[in-house]
Order: sequence, then C-alpha cells, then structure tokens
Amino acid sequence: MKKLLQVGMAGFLSVGISMAANAVDSEDAIEYRQAVMTLIKWNMGQMGAMLKGKIPFDAEAFAKRAANLAVLSQMPLEGFTPGSDQGYTNADPSIWRNWDDYNAKMVKFQQEAAKLAEVAKTATRGEIGSQFVNTAKTCKGCHRVYKR
Amino acid sequence: MKKLLQVGMAGFLSVGISMAANAVDSEDAIEYRQAVMTLIKWNMGQMGAMLKGKIPFDAEAFAKRAANLAVLSQMPLEGFTPGSDQGYTNADPSIWRNWDDYNAKMVKFQQEAAKLAEVAKTATRGEIGSQFVNTAKTCKGCHRVYKR
Repeated sequence: MKKLLQVGMAGFLSVGISMAANAVDSEDAIEYRQAVMTLIKWNMGQMGAMLKGKIPFDAEAFAKRAANLAVLSQMPLEGFTPGSDQGYTNADPSIWRNWDDYNAKMVKFQQEAAKLAEVAKTATRGEIGSQFVNTAKTCKGCHRVYKR
Repeated sequence: MKKLLQVGMAGFLSVGISMAANAVDSEDAIEYRQAVMTLIKWNMGQMGAMLKGKIPFDAEAFAKRAANLAVLSQMPLEGFTPGSDQGYTNADPSIWRNWDDYNAKMVKFQQEAAKLAEVAKTATRGEIGSQFVNTAKTCKGCHRVYKR
C-alpha cells in the first residue's frame, strides 16, 4: 500500500460497514479487487467442475468452497474506490456513475452466495446445483453490464 | 481453469481437507495463490495502519478484517500444487522438497490468524496489537525461508 489517505466518500458509505472509508492508492485497489475476483472464479470453477462431474463431487469440500465464496462475496466492493476507474482495469467507469445499481447487484450476489453456503451444508446435489446456478447468474448479470 | 486432472497427490493429503486433491493448471494455481497473498497483504496492511494510527482505529472494521484473514489463511496451501514451482512465481522450489516444514509454517500462520480473529472481538487494543505482531511474524518467518 503506497499511501493511505482519509477522504470523504459519501457515496461509498452506503456499502454498509465502513471498511471502504479509507481510500487507498488506485493501483492497489485494482490489484485487490482483481485478486478477489480471481479467488471467486477459482472457487466457482471448482464447484462447477464438481457439479458437472469433471471432478468427483465431495460434499464437504463443496460446502467449504461455498462458505469461502460467501466470505469472498463481501470483499470486492471496498476495492472500487473513487478514481480507480482509471488504470489497468476491466471495471467499466459506469460503475461509479451508477453506484446504487452496482451496489445492489453486488448485494444480490452476496445474498445468493450466502444462500449457497447454507444450502451446501445439507441439501441434495440437485438443490445445490440449482442454487449454484442462481449464484452464477448474479456474476454474469453484473459482468454483462459492468465488465469491459 | 484450463484443465482439471485427477492425480495422486500423496504428499498433499496431509493438508487436511481434500480440496487440493484435484490438480489444476500450474499457471492458474500460481495466479490463485498470488491472489490469496494479495488479499492477506491488503487486510494486514489495513489492520497495521489502524494499529499504527495511520488511519483511525475502528474495532468493528478491525474484527471484520481479522475474521477475513482467518478465512484467507486457510486458502494458500491448495495453490501450491505439484509442478507449480515452475513459472512466474516467487515461491521457492524448496517448498516442495520441504513440504512438511512448509505445511507446518502455514498451519502456524492459520493458528495465529484464528487467534487474532478471536482476540479482535473483545480484547484491548494493546492485546490486539500484540497478537497482530505474532501473526505478522508467521508471515515474515515463512517468507524469509520460502519466498524468492
């Protein structure tokens, strides 16, 4: 982290917890959120592979990944700091112009991921698969609009 | 994920949960583990900044980051797949030759991070600071030996 500055971020306070209230270098913020997305993709990929039968379905491992995903889903938002639409990023600048919509889409993802983590504990493979699809749809739905 | 292959990974089964039992492309594994390290660094950096007074100390935000760190500390090991000592990586190849030692160092980090998450819920700022240092030492101790 190259510098830590306290700046007013009125639009970001709606994120909930005030973890995003301390601005960081845009380059670090971009690297951070891309790392979160990498881990989300990794866990989604492994869960998807299990559901598709590419690797053996392991209920315990799946549940662990779903729990990880639920935690990871809480992490991206604080990386979308003001000004970090510039730089080596696939984030569309419209995210910052449509913050309420972007935030709502991210909250929807968080909700579906939390539900997947719950479902993964006890449900049938079919029910888990169905909730996995619901979760994946929130990824795709947001990427379609806000990923360049 | 370019390919998912099931291979025998006797040495890796000691990791605990069988999440590392399905090998992935080395490039993906390297990207994955570097992403985990990026998120660990991000959260450690923000917690450190709070303890040093560079940004205001916020007990709730600190506890949330410590909880994140405890989850993240469980994630790196599965990224150190066989063969992924080759490529764009700072991981020293001796990790794979000294797997038991590397694994033990990672478990120590996991234990200290879990303790930090506990302490952060209720302890004084001094106690939290002390456990933060204990946790940071496990990072540095391992990097000194196994990071190129």
